Amino acid sequence: MKYNIAVIHGDGIGPEVVGEALKVLDTIAEKYHHEFVYTPVLAGGCAIDAVGECLPQATIDACKAADAVLLGAVGGWKWDTLPGDKRPERALLGLRKELELFANIRPAMLFDALADACPLKPEIVEGGLDIVVVRELTGGIYFGERGTKDTELGLAAYDVEQYAEEEVKRIAVTAFDMAMKRNKKVTSVDKANVLESSRLWRRVVTEVAKDYPEVTLEHLYIDNAAMQLVRNPKQFDVIVTGNIFGDILSDEASMITGSIGMLPSASLAKGNFGMYEPVHGSAPDIAGQDKANPMATILSTAMMLRYTFGLSEEADAIENAVKTVLAKGYRTPDIYTEGMTLVGTKEAGRLICAEI
Amino acid sequence: MKYNIAVIHGDGIGPEVVGEALKVLDTIAEKYHHEFVYTPVLAGGCAIDAVGECLPQATIDACKAADAVLLGAVGGWKWDTLPGDKRPERALLGLRKELELFANIRPAMLFDALADACPLKPEIVEGGLDIVVVRELTGGIYFGERGTKDTELGLAAYDVEQYAEEEVKRIAVTAFDMAMKRNKKVTSVDKANVLESSRLWRRVVTEVAKDYPEVTLEHLYIDNAAMQLVRNPKQFDVIVTGNIFGDILSDEASMITGSIGMLPSASLAKGNFGMYEPVHGSAPDIAGQDKANPMATILSTAMMLRYTFGLSEEADAIENAVKTVLAKGYRTPDIYTEGMTLVGTKEAGRLICAEI
Ligand SMILES: CC(C)[C@H](C(=O)O)[C@@H](O)C(=O)O
Ligand SMILES: CC(C)[C@H](C(=O)O)[C@@H](O)C(=O)O
Repeated sequence: MKYNIAVIHGDGIGPEVVGEALKVLDTIAEKYHHEFVYTPVLAGGCAIDAVGECLPQATIDACKAADAVLLGAVGGWKWDTLPGDKRPERALLGLRKELELFANIRPAMLFDALADACPLKPEIVEGGLDIVVVRELTGGIYFGERGTKDTELGLAAYDVEQYAEEEVKRIAVTAFDMAMKRNKKVTSVDKANVLESSRLWRRVVTEVAKDYPEVTLEHLYIDNAAMQLVRNPKQFDVIVTGNIFGDILSDEASMITGSIGMLPSASLAKGNFGMYEPVHGSAPDIAGQDKANPMATILSTAMMLRYTFGLSEEADAIENAVKTVLAKGYRTPDIYTEGMTLVGTKEAGRLICAEI
Repeated sequence: MKYNIAVIHGDGIGPEVVGEALKVLDTIAEKYHHEFVYTPVLAGGCAIDAVGECLPQATIDACKAADAVLLGAVGGWKWDTLPGDKRPERALLGLRKELELFANIRPAMLFDALADACPLKPEIVEGGLDIVVVRELTGGIYFGERGTKDTELGLAAYDVEQYAEEEVKRIAVTAFDMAMKRNKKVTSVDKANVLESSRLWRRVVTEVAKDYPEVTLEHLYIDNAAMQLVRNPKQFDVIVTGNIFGDILSDEASMITGSIGMLPSASLAKGNFGMYEPVHGSAPDIAGQDKANPMATILSTAMMLRYTFGLSEEADAIENAVKTVLAKGYRTPDIYTEGMTLVGTKEAGRLICAEI
């Protein structure tokens, strides 16, 4: 089979980690007789530099024409003086909206070999962590009306958090479908004791739950969820929440694993289309020095194989190769601890390819 | 001096913990020759039961007439089937708005004697934690316009996040003033890469900072702040943020101390008026069993003495008494560990009074 992938190398360490991820895909192609066709496109800071805007129309078109998108990272100091709404990161919001990537899937797991890096006490994470945050990605306060107006208290600025029934329904279905393949528990997070949009959210999620009698549904307020992730993260299986709460919770969940540099993500549209990217940022401080950890991006390609292309055996092969390389003691600088073997970006990629 | 305190015992363990806090205030009154006059008033579930609404006008009037308000806790299972906007917790929002309590002050500190309860690894919190979250409490999405409307995607519900310059200014001033008395660092948390209201927030905070050249100001996005609290909480001194982000971050910060049952809070208006309450909830499961920990409420009275009445010596006396009781090994059930002396609510209160 032939698969078309639009590739956004992006900024900072993006090009390096994507480079290794493509080598891994090539290795998979060879071993399993697939063909991956890559279309490199510009987005983020490098696009601002090249064509004056962070998300050129050509990039959107190429992504839409592809079967999936692989993205490294966007942003960096160089563009930090631009006004908030002109920053490279805006490319992400544009891609999400244009490609209708309404479901952001962020697994937060503890890698056995890296358990020591977890900031939580061992007894709290004993036996591992395996949470998936399902974040709504094209609605809510990220895309609601916003503006400024004069008030008695001076100039005011506003942003509207809004959710419609169909928006909540489709993300809830994604979460429940995922829970069915996992531990059959969904925790829906909102602020229904204050927000009207959360009350609608809670009502629709509760309705969707009726189609999944095997799945246990729990509702938590966002403030409580932020606490529970620290106090007792093992209570969670699938967390489903809106765009802004998901932004916060998915990052918090990533951090409690202690291995944020290892975590992949998927942003899915209806059907099988998706954009895949590591959770970490562009890390301009180590860009171009062969120091970046390519594993999160490599694991993102595994998600791509699984979710968009339905190639779960191949996805397993990548995930197992990463685990084996870790188990053998190889570490990039971000996850290095004494007694391990320090490797660079390229060597890490090569080792993973070799294990496939 | 004579001080008038409106007292909201509230629901669940509220009456018990407030009872001990009043004994502590009485002890202070005797030792330091003050007079505290208590006016008990109803709010929360007990008010719903008694008069059909969670925040009767008489309560608001009595609070306004007082110099300060002491509140135990509101809410409980009994009223959990009421619609979100009729719950006892709405009394809190009403009190905040009516009493113009715009600044919520939530210290998150590690008690030496309870350091073991911290969910974070010892090396992360070594040397203790001492963070204050300053949360804007009468604006933002909590009090913006909200409603429902029909859309192509079904019924939609919305809530408006809005901040005006003067609102941001006064909370920023509170935060910087506090930082001046502490470690001279303010971290302002927003989502300025997405929200218009956050961009205004950031601009105003930056302007206010100019009046405090000795204070270091840092800006963090909310997703990053939620991570940094877990990764490296010691970087924080004063955190200032809006209502909803503050709701999330202050709870997360409380939880990382491991002693949420110990933490007090103050909600301040312009001038010296304030409402003081423990961070913990009404814990209906242990209500009336002499099991509740009264220390957070007792420490809230210390905040009252310090912030509203300007009695810092007396406030110190209470805080030191609590520390001494802990150091002597006395523990209520929530913080009990092997080898310590288990005490009930009343005995804990008595021991603290005895140390004053
Ligand atoms: C860069 C920013 C706009 C983005 C977001 O808030 O969604 C990022 O934090 C993320 O989670 O992908
Ligand atoms: C009960 C609820 C409305 C309240 C809030 O969200 O402000 C609570 O979580 C708090 O932080 O005091």
